Amino acid sequence: MNIISERKCFDSRIKKIFTSPISQKTASFIILKDVNIYYLTSFYGKDSESILLITGDNLYLLVNFIYLEQARKSIQNKNVNIVCCKKDKYRKLAKILEDYSFNSIGVEGKNISFTGFRKLEKLLSGQGKRLVSIDGVVENLRTVKDKVEISKIKNACKITDKVFGSIINSSAASIEKLSEIELACRIEELLVKSNSEGRSFDTIVAYGKNSSMPHYSPQKIKVKGGLMLMDFGCKFENYCSDMTRTIFTGNLKICNEFKKIYDIVLKAQLLAIENCREGVTCSQLDRIARKFIISKGYGNNFGHSLGHGVGIEVHEEPAVTMQNRTVLRENMVITIEPGIYIENFGGVRIEDMVIVGKNGCEVLNNSKKSFLILD
Amino acid sequence: MNIISERKCFDSRIKKIFTSPISQKTASFIILKDVNIYYLTSFYGKDSESILLITGDNLYLLVNFIYLEQARKSIQNKNVNIVCCKKDKYRKLAKILEDYSFNSIGVEGKNISFTGFRKLEKLLSGQGKRLVSIDGVVENLRTVKDKVEISKIKNACKITDKVFGSIINSSAASIEKLSEIELACRIEELLVKSNSEGRSFDTIVAYGKNSSMPHYSPQKIKVKGGLMLMDFGCKFENYCSDMTRTIFTGNLKICNEFKKIYDIVLKAQLLAIENCREGVTCSQLDRIARKFIISKGYGNNFGHSLGHGVGIEVHEEPAVTMQNRTVLRENMVITIEPGIYIENFGGVRIEDMVIVGKNGCEVLNNSKKSFLILD
Repeated sequence: MNIISERKCFDSRIKKIFTSPISQKTASFIILKDVNIYYLTSFYGKDSESILLITGDNLYLLVNFIYLEQARKSIQNKNVNIVCCKKDKYRKLAKILEDYSFNSIGVEGKNISFTGFRKLEKLLSGQGKRLVSIDGVVENLRTVKDKVEISKIKNACKITDKVFGSIINSSAASIEKLSEIELACRIEELLVKSNSEGRSFDTIVAYGKNSSMPHYSPQKIKVKGGLMLMDFGCKFENYCSDMTRTIFTGNLKICNEFKKIYDIVLKAQLLAIENCREGVTCSQLDRIARKFIISKGYGNNFGHSLGHGVGIEVHEEPAVTMQNRTVLRENMVITIEPGIYIENFGGVRIEDMVIVGKNGCEVLNNSKKSFLILD
Repeated sequence: MNIISERKCFDSRIKKIFTSPISQKTASFIILKDVNIYYLTSFYGKDSESILLITGDNLYLLVNFIYLEQARKSIQNKNVNIVCCKKDKYRKLAKILEDYSFNSIGVEGKNISFTGFRKLEKLLSGQGKRLVSIDGVVENLRTVKDKVEISKIKNACKITDKVFGSIINSSAASIEKLSEIELACRIEELLVKSNSEGRSFDTIVAYGKNSSMPHYSPQKIKVKGGLMLMDFGCKFENYCSDMTRTIFTGNLKICNEFKKIYDIVLKAQLLAIENCREGVTCSQLDRIARKFIISKGYGNNFGHSLGHGVGIEVHEEPAVTMQNRTVLRENMVITIEPGIYIENFGGVRIEDMVIVGKNGCEVLNNSKKSFLILD
């Protein structure tokens, strides 16, 4: 990746904040979410509780001591003043704002706790300033990816495909030696060895009946032939991938029972991919896959949404749900992942990532998705 | 673990909520934090955005479809009504509350976003009900561990010790083949193989200069002899361990320079352990280690707090900071982890978990902490 072009991306994002509709509401803005701060500054202090204050041309990044060196090393933009906070970051923030004459200050309402908002509000009211909740500004910018981001995401998807390839090239016997949690661990090890920064979320491996729980945590259970759902992804230069495949091992009787469900899920997924393009709303896309699954009699077994945005976060905007009327735009990156889940029996989910284009979408995963029996 | 005795623990915790001071403020309480819900119900829907409503003898657990089966399987308490929410959980919550005549309803103010609070407040005001922010109720209960919890935590610590033992029994040459991220992955694999549920947080492995960043993320960098900081832990039946060791490989010149710092950190840590007992405040304990490090001239290089509580979360109450006047009580479990960090040079941290006792504390880690050179 060309470092200069990447630096330009970060700088241009800050500018976008103040040409966005938010600029009409407030002259300054407080950002609390770690990934939003990374998106704007290149400093990624995961769970660091850092704060970014944007006041026109000045930016202040408030960090704890333990993130100070990392912040200094990662931030290239000279307009960012790095402020080390030993004690209370809200007090420091209020202190900085004393020098400014704004009447109102925006803050990310979804990313600040109620208790936090009240505390900051009180500190600022002493200066005659009003704290205003504004949601989704950076999240909205992040939905449409630039070239640098797309290149990173493509790399993350390639690595995911490669690792899935390694898994299905193993023998069923070698897989059946491993518990769910051991297979999850093997997948994560392969992700690291394949030049990623490791998993983008806790790998899901669910055997047999366990696969009916879409967000299952792998246990110390060994597979005895049957269904095997794997949902995993990695990070490449801070950008995520996310893919699910459901395969079958050994037990052919179970395989045959599942084949019917598998085919329905796969057809629903391909139908959604076929219809994914700029101009379609998230809810329309969800409905296309859902209607098909309902028509086959499994509507009540597809209880989650069709997909979600992926980028710095593995789950980000836009949520591809029945309710979300967000219109898909070129260079949004989303997952398409219908599933059918039957309690005490098992579940099938097939998930790919796609980039939305003007007239269609580009599928970023190349992993086999025809019905696969490992033996 | 005796399942019946564990079930009793869950049930008794719910009762404690309503004998705590909160009961004087509100007759019902909304809990949003996943680990708090687990603590009270045994349902652990990580990042599931579930909601627990406690209204006297009735409990309602609101979950998305994708957590429904897991919730049904994990909850034994018949007083918990599991409610599946397809759309908006806040609306469903308000609907349930229609049947109750409370004037005010408590909610975890630190665990709800400002936007979320406002939305729920609006829904309830239509029923003439007031939403009141109440902080730290469950977090406070969680600080003092019961027997079931202590047994799980001890197991988690034992596994951590075992894995550290495996690492230091490797040759320096075999370690030096691995990048930071590969060694982190190796550690996590060993944690799984040692019968834990895997890492309790993303393993930190920092070589050489990188160790000066306390919350460093391991990179694809290989060690070339020198300092190696490892901070890791695992989960055992949903309870965490957390330990840090700093060791040295190969390069003896660097080792000698670090020995002085290492000895100061170790003495500070032992001093804090010696003074850790019921009745001491968190700030007093922090000050004991800090004063010693200051006396040796490294006060500015110990920029984080002395420790934190550990339980279902790897970081929980009480925070062992300069500011926290919480009094330590018997059966609290905390870390004691002083460190000295020098930018562009490196850092040393030594961390153990301890259980606070009436007249002292029990150190839960047995891993070697004398100055260790791997060759």
